[in-house]
Amino acid sequence: MSSIWGKKIKLSIFGESHGPAIGINIDGLPPGIELDLEYIKKEMERRAPGKDILATTRKEADEFEIISGYFNNRTTGTPLCIVIKNTNIHSKDYEKIKNIARPGHADYTGKLKYHGYNDYRGGGHFSGRITAPIVFAGAIAKQILKERKILITSHIQGIGNISEESFLGIELDENIVEKLRNKRFPTINDEKARQMEELILKAKSEMDSVGGVIEVGVINPLAGLGSPFFDSVESRLSQMIFSIPGVKGIEFGAGFDITKMKGSESNDEFYYEGSSVKTHTNNNGGILGGITNGMPIIFRVAMKPTSSIARTQRTINMETKENVEINVVGRHDPTIVVRAVPVLEAATALVILDLLMEEYI
Amino acid sequence: MSSIWGKKIKLSIFGESHGPAIGINIDGLPPGIELDLEYIKKEMERRAPGKDILATTRKEADEFEIISGYFNNRTTGTPLCIVIKNTNIHSKDYEKIKNIARPGHADYTGKLKYHGYNDYRGGGHFSGRITAPIVFAGAIAKQILKERKILITSHIQGIGNISEESFLGIELDENIVEKLRNKRFPTINDEKARQMEELILKAKSEMDSVGGVIEVGVINPLAGLGSPFFDSVESRLSQMIFSIPGVKGIEFGAGFDITKMKGSESNDEFYYEGSSVKTHTNNNGGILGGITNGMPIIFRVAMKPTSSIARTQRTINMETKENVEINVVGRHDPTIVVRAVPVLEAATALVILDLLMEEYI
Amino acid sequence: MSSIWGKKIKLSIFGESHGPAIGINIDGLPPGIELDLEYIKKEMERRAPGKDILATTRKEADEFEIISGYFNNRTTGTPLCIVIKNTNIHSKDYEKIKNIARPGHADYTGKLKYHGYNDYRGGGHFSGRITAPIVFAGAIAKQILKERKILITSHIQGIGNISEESFLGIELDENIVEKLRNKRFPTINDEKARQMEELILKAKSEMDSVGGVIEVGVINPLAGLGSPFFDSVESRLSQMIFSIPGVKGIEFGAGFDITKMKGSESNDEFYYEGSSVKTHTNNNGGILGGITNGMPIIFRVAMKPTSSIARTQRTINMETKENVEINVVGRHDPTIVVRAVPVLEAATALVILDLLMEEYI
Amino acid sequence: MSSIWGKKIKLSIFGESHGPAIGINIDGLPPGIELDLEYIKKEMERRAPGKDILATTRKEADEFEIISGYFNNRTTGTPLCIVIKNTNIHSKDYEKIKNIARPGHADYTGKLKYHGYNDYRGGGHFSGRITAPIVFAGAIAKQILKERKILITSHIQGIGNISEESFLGIELDENIVEKLRNKRFPTINDEKARQMEELILKAKSEMDSVGGVIEVGVINPLAGLGSPFFDSVESRLSQMIFSIPGVKGIEFGAGFDITKMKGSESNDEFYYEGSSVKTHTNNNGGILGGITNGMPIIFRVAMKPTSSIARTQRTINMETKENVEINVVGRHDPTIVVRAVPVLEAATALVILDLLMEEYI
Repeated sequence: MSSIWGKKIKLSIFGESHGPAIGINIDGLPPGIELDLEYIKKEMERRAPGKDILATTRKEADEFEIISGYFNNRTTGTPLCIVIKNTNIHSKDYEKIKNIARPGHADYTGKLKYHGYNDYRGGGHFSGRITAPIVFAGAIAKQILKERKILITSHIQGIGNISEESFLGIELDENIVEKLRNKRFPTINDEKARQMEELILKAKSEMDSVGGVIEVGVINPLAGLGSPFFDSVESRLSQMIFSIPGVKGIEFGAGFDITKMKGSESNDEFYYEGSSVKTHTNNNGGILGGITNGMPIIFRVAMKPTSSIARTQRTINMETKENVEINVVGRHDPTIVVRAVPVLEAATALVILDLLMEEYI
Repeated sequence: MSSIWGKKIKLSIFGESHGPAIGINIDGLPPGIELDLEYIKKEMERRAPGKDILATTRKEADEFEIISGYFNNRTTGTPLCIVIKNTNIHSKDYEKIKNIARPGHADYTGKLKYHGYNDYRGGGHFSGRITAPIVFAGAIAKQILKERKILITSHIQGIGNISEESFLGIELDENIVEKLRNKRFPTINDEKARQMEELILKAKSEMDSVGGVIEVGVINPLAGLGSPFFDSVESRLSQMIFSIPGVKGIEFGAGFDITKMKGSESNDEFYYEGSSVKTHTNNNGGILGGITNGMPIIFRVAMKPTSSIARTQRTINMETKENVEINVVGRHDPTIVVRAVPVLEAATALVILDLLMEEYI
Repeated sequence: MSSIWGKKIKLSIFGESHGPAIGINIDGLPPGIELDLEYIKKEMERRAPGKDILATTRKEADEFEIISGYFNNRTTGTPLCIVIKNTNIHSKDYEKIKNIARPGHADYTGKLKYHGYNDYRGGGHFSGRITAPIVFAGAIAKQILKERKILITSHIQGIGNISEESFLGIELDENIVEKLRNKRFPTINDEKARQMEELILKAKSEMDSVGGVIEVGVINPLAGLGSPFFDSVESRLSQMIFSIPGVKGIEFGAGFDITKMKGSESNDEFYYEGSSVKTHTNNNGGILGGITNGMPIIFRVAMKPTSSIARTQRTINMETKENVEINVVGRHDPTIVVRAVPVLEAATALVILDLLMEEYI
Repeated sequence: MSSIWGKKIKLSIFGESHGPAIGINIDGLPPGIELDLEYIKKEMERRAPGKDILATTRKEADEFEIISGYFNNRTTGTPLCIVIKNTNIHSKDYEKIKNIARPGHADYTGKLKYHGYNDYRGGGHFSGRITAPIVFAGAIAKQILKERKILITSHIQGIGNISEESFLGIELDENIVEKLRNKRFPTINDEKARQMEELILKAKSEMDSVGGVIEVGVINPLAGLGSPFFDSVESRLSQMIFSIPGVKGIEFGAGFDITKMKGSESNDEFYYEGSSVKTHTNNNGGILGGITNGMPIIFRVAMKPTSSIARTQRTINMETKENVEINVVGRHDPTIVVRAVPVLEAATALVILDLLMEEYI
């Protein structure tokens, strides 16, 4: 079931890019939580389009209306549903190309899966726009986790060939989380940010797009979350992260680089710091045997370049069964990496909260 | 629930490395399948220990007994359960170190999770040994898929710093599958195999271990499997693959390299070859919008070096709460990559079969 | 997770009786279905309040808005979400009694479960009003089943001490289904209907309420649906039926009366009628070993009297912890049996469709 | 998935009546529990065949072997699997009638479902014998619940036309639980037991069988377990109870009799007894809005007469497609009610434990 997720916190998403509305029904939230609506709105804005030259010019306020599960400014514990109306729609753009499979998009696979009945306008239900409700749910998860001192953060570690240092090399704390959250273009190193932005604008000017790597950190996760085998923390996180459109890879801790180490290098040696158990390195990204060991959870996500580009591309007409060419005109992000940052944080927060609630309600 | 997996095919695994037995209960198999027991045994042998200087000397026949769901040499459609007895057990090795957390292992996290009651001998339920039943189930899945011309294959793409070409660069067919399956050390390039083996033996001689990359290919997957969002093919595969002990990363198609491409390079352009839809490149690894597009599914998996090494390592005594040192003596694989090959194939086959059965029973 | 249901067809419900809106997100519907909106509206009307002296005078149009999953008048195959606005709300009635546990209601258990944060107005999320979206989803299920000649029907078999014959004694066909659906008070026997209505009005005049028995029939179910043990047809149906507020019992076929039979009477003897397998009796209600045998599925459901009555009742003040008295004023149904008829049919249709899709997509 | 059950405690059952073995894999048990093996064996014996003139003469020791998840006499928290070997098998009895559908049995529906590949001997996987592993799991659940003062009990409330008083009319306490558990034929009233036994023996002498009603009580359930709608306590219990072969009905509290009450009679009025909330009556069987209210959970289950009877019955030959006659010879229980008692208690305990663990780990 593509639209349902979770064990204790259950999400059920709905909507299409150019339909009347998108939204989410969230079941299993603890009752009595006074939502920090300003915090949630800020998270939504971090993802919203139209705010920047680095992003699409489609402007969407992404105003949400809570239609259930919220009473006297607190969660009731029963399903909390929000609806976000679609306002700035140019559907006619899509009528002309409805039979042309845009390369890199789900037009072809969606048509197959739904026997041609899917809403093809703007990708329909496959649109990255459907991640807005996930950011909403994730913002609530972040708020709940924060009360337990568990913080979620991330930075753009790379765009194209330009990359910066990893979270593995620095001490993660509350200040970094706050600093990164307030950056329009969240990197650790400002000069790198400048170079990455330059690269994005260059791609834009060439009617092209670029991809990148986002690194996510979970600070102060409780030790003991997760399980061996099918409910390993890596299994749960990766299942969720690959739900986000555009993700093509995930690696934990040292990730693919661990394959080049010896066991004597890759093993994270334990030590007691007072009564706390720590490891000298964090090549396993805070997870051993599928279970958190208390060190920060660190993972990196590969985001592909925006599929929509105005350049001429070869493709097919699915109706006439001919090989044709296409230029995907319209309002596109030259990269989805920037807007994906809050989405990945939200997705991560939801997984961690779900794992936490399995152990401690 | 750590031990349960699947939607149409349901697996339920059990056992500990040094307990009486390990096994699996498989529910949802189609009725009437005459199992190719020779094929299954061969798959089990590919994973079995003790067969090679590259592996541990613990010898286990891994003989399975089918105790339900199999009647007149065919599956009944009701749960098929197998039990594999543990025979070659040296439990005393573990008694002495039961309070010492072996670096890279789940000793510490397992103790936390299970409040100290987990079976610590040989990693207990966390042991890679529990993948034997998964290989059994996967062998059945492969047999069923083969009848539909869907083939699963894999090769060792890298050990340490030595790596060979990707499946992305070659035409995958039945011959390659057969050839790789029959290799003791499955690579495309024999010279690379020699170099990799050398590296493994060198690590072994240094009482150390190495990791590597395994690349998996699914040939002729049906187009249209999977769903957008939470049941994307990437989500389903990664959830399962990260269940395998030692996995720290997964990437589909071009994977992390896609982040260095432009959209004009990464987009896989479509074309008709006769009435078949193909793509000129396969940077998306056969998956678009979470759904198979009919091109081979290609992904790479990062396996960490074997955690058990005889070298002295710093760690903790969880009982006395002291910092101590450990040498993990015993019979260890200098790399888990070789034995992980059939496990990853099995895991992949199970996911593909589960996806297939959701669409076509 | 209280609000999520289903395996192939997934429902996610939301809303409170006196909140902004109620609704449902339906995932897994086949794509390409042109909804029969008139049929759906008729089903909604069968459940709607305010249409009759036998029901509450709260008038709700129950107008639904489809906000996703429906494109060019057909289902897309992606989640179909509807929202029904709450319009006729008298919330002030509930402010005064918010700490008084109405007997028979979930006020006390809801307060416990949600630590006092649940929306207490009109029962909040516990309200029978939340069944309106289930009727919507069920109407779609009925439409799909009808195309396969599978029909769902029901009648009021009893109110208080007055009862009529069972479906077990008559031949169920399309005519009966149509006839019952068009009755304001669906019974087989019109004279019995008159007596039952009289009883309801008498209770109403006495500021009291009555319960009753609804019998449901599934005509022409495919043989072979369901499974032994945890997915028996009885398990799946009962799980769903007990989700409906006010249900206190369910029995299949001869039900509790079968306990008074001998095996030689209760066993349904098989015979061939042409190439069709039938049974001479249907004491098992069309289900053997958890699997449909092709005979009509017949079951009866016990509905309790409406809990809201204006008579003085003893109860507690949950705030002051005192024993108090209450008169539940407001607009109440003297019986919920009549309005429950389309709800039970909807619930049944959803289960049968879900079982069907597990076997044949 | 017919063989998998549960949310926090997961069961996976396997086996056939005449195969090598039956068993169960239990995931999610709390770690560190020292199993009371004597208690478990006693529960198994309560269900075991061959112990009494009221039951089949097939003698099975039902000796279980724990093959995983149990270490140093305590649960590890990882999957606990048991295997019970089938020993006393007369398979040849079934060879002759393999194409004849025994009335009341799943021979016909099983053949349909599994396309003729199911193990037909003794009902195969449909056999009541598969409830032995459920009794094992339930005995563990009862042990865990007992430590929280939650007790599960039951009595045979009726056999054929003879019935005794309900739990609703008496005060349930620890003594009754113990007394009933130690009775070979558990009723409240000894004279009634004598009459019921007489009826069973009479049916036996007539080569016939009888059914009956079992009433189950959960004493001191925590208040606040369960949820509205799809996870109501009634939904969860009924789903499980209808998994038990032979069950055709379930009713909670006053059950079907509540339909004959007025609201002023059926509503359970609340009162404070000290600081405890109680109700004057328990017509709702301890459940309101799907959630426990702290009063005993009371429900009754209708068990049909044993389907296997030696009398001549009309039926079909599924191979030749002819109408034929059958006498089901062999060793049968004249009633399944007596042996179902510990099965229903086990099933109930598992549901209550699962609900409890959802709330309090």
